Amino acid sequence: MESFFSFLEKRVDDCSSLLCVGLDPHVGDLKEASPASALDFCLNLVKQTSRYAAAFKPNAAFFEAFGADGWTALRQVIEAIQHESNRMGSMIPVILDAKRGDIASTAEAYAKSAFEILGAHCITLSPYLGKDSIDPFIQKSEKGVFLLCKTSNPGSGDVQDIVLSDGNLLYEHVAKLAQQWNTKNNIGLVVGATHVEAMQRVRAVAPDLWFLAPGVGAQGGELEAALQAGLRKDGRGMLIPISRGISRAKKPGLAAAEIRDEILSIKNKLRV
Amino acid sequence: MESFFSFLEKRVDDCSSLLCVGLDPHVGDLKEASPASALDFCLNLVKQTSRYAAAFKPNAAFFEAFGADGWTALRQVIEAIQHESNRMGSMIPVILDAKRGDIASTAEAYAKSAFEILGAHCITLSPYLGKDSIDPFIQKSEKGVFLLCKTSNPGSGDVQDIVLSDGNLLYEHVAKLAQQWNTKNNIGLVVGATHVEAMQRVRAVAPDLWFLAPGVGAQGGELEAALQAGLRKDGRGMLIPISRGISRAKKPGLAAAEIRDEILSIKNKLRV
Repeated sequence: MESFFSFLEKRVDDCSSLLCVGLDPHVGDLKEASPASALDFCLNLVKQTSRYAAAFKPNAAFFEAFGADGWTALRQVIEAIQHESNRMGSMIPVILDAKRGDIASTAEAYAKSAFEILGAHCITLSPYLGKDSIDPFIQKSEKGVFLLCKTSNPGSGDVQDIVLSDGNLLYEHVAKLAQQWNTKNNIGLVVGATHVEAMQRVRAVAPDLWFLAPGVGAQGGELEAALQAGLRKDGRGMLIPISRGISRAKKPGLAAAEIRDEILSIKNKLRV
Repeated sequence: MESFFSFLEKRVDDCSSLLCVGLDPHVGDLKEASPASALDFCLNLVKQTSRYAAAFKPNAAFFEAFGADGWTALRQVIEAIQHESNRMGSMIPVILDAKRGDIASTAEAYAKSAFEILGAHCITLSPYLGKDSIDPFIQKSEKGVFLLCKTSNPGSGDVQDIVLSDGNLLYEHVAKLAQQWNTKNNIGLVVGATHVEAMQRVRAVAPDLWFLAPGVGAQGGELEAALQAGLRKDGRGMLIPISRGISRAKKPGLAAAEIRDEILSIKNKLRV
């Protein structure tokens, strides 16, 4: 089997896109506060944006907030992405944004939930528990993880920016570990587009890894500066997740196309 | 409303116990691999051990691994604990072991899921994303959190033991933050009973906080050394979660009673 990031790169090339469409059924954005409405919201987004999406990223929290029926809706959303992929003849990776992190047999149960029950290809994880908490998710090279490294929220500095005895920041240590651990080409990093200097530092210690770079749009990251700091030398290596910037647009398909094109145009300008 | 830890302390006094009964329906321990069997497994444990349990701790992973029906089973387990509490006339806190951690509105959705949809009183969280990722869970003093600090797994050192520029270890920094953030008496720490020296260090910087101290039993922590290192001066401040040591016993009720009594006896011997 090909590795997760080979799979992602194939899709990135197929659709000339580094856009990752976030599927976040915030209750405030739904017609009514129901799992059925969350499902409709996501299915509509999938249908309208699939041509431009290098990946889809459903966030588990917004489904969990609807209980068991929300969980069913999440599975149905992922199934719909698979059907849409088959229809287009180009498989779209599904990154489950779940930020899990637990030990041994518990991590195995989460891996089973994400990859077997839900059918996702990749999951976001916390690095705080160390390598053995990641292992159950990276056993198979075709399944991938993005480890939280430097997140886009205001409080991310409380722990991630702490200075270590060797002068590095904690998030750089995490990036180095991920670069070392990535022996199967299935580990990437979450690095907020809101922190351009941090992204430069992370790229310096993790030259090979893919970044999932949230914060463009609703969270205020500047796209060009982020791409300049984070793109790999091969012009790939960054997925730009956008949620509300697409879902709240009058025409989500058009918004996705425009963002895809804007990323492409900046990438060409930067000549990476 | 009383704070979460006042609520826990009332229950600790009611049942003279620091035992937290873990509800981990590992698929290998079930009669069959089904959500119904996971539910039976947990309901039996709740019924047999409720007299000795200072708290119950269902782990979300083992329920998630059964998909939507697992999620329903988890809600039913928590309902059963509430009924058992009412029957006994002493409310037993439910700590959802979920190790979540996400930003802003996403954290709010997880808080809704844990506290409103599932009815838990407390949740385990990762500290990696910082204070603003914890805030939605600690708004109401009667709902609590245990932040991961020094976990019991072999790989916990990869990130948690890193030495900071001030000579402290990362987990000590996390413990200090938690001690500062605990203005509503609803933040505790997860500190593995497998790491006695770490527990001493954490107790030194967080003299007031409750610890959830896994690793006794299946993971090999020594109970007496852990209690000596971790108990507060008032003889409280530590919950000892046990899962397989009870669920795999021939008579789980008897096993729970014995562990409760062993903890009490060590506590009295230590005269804290």
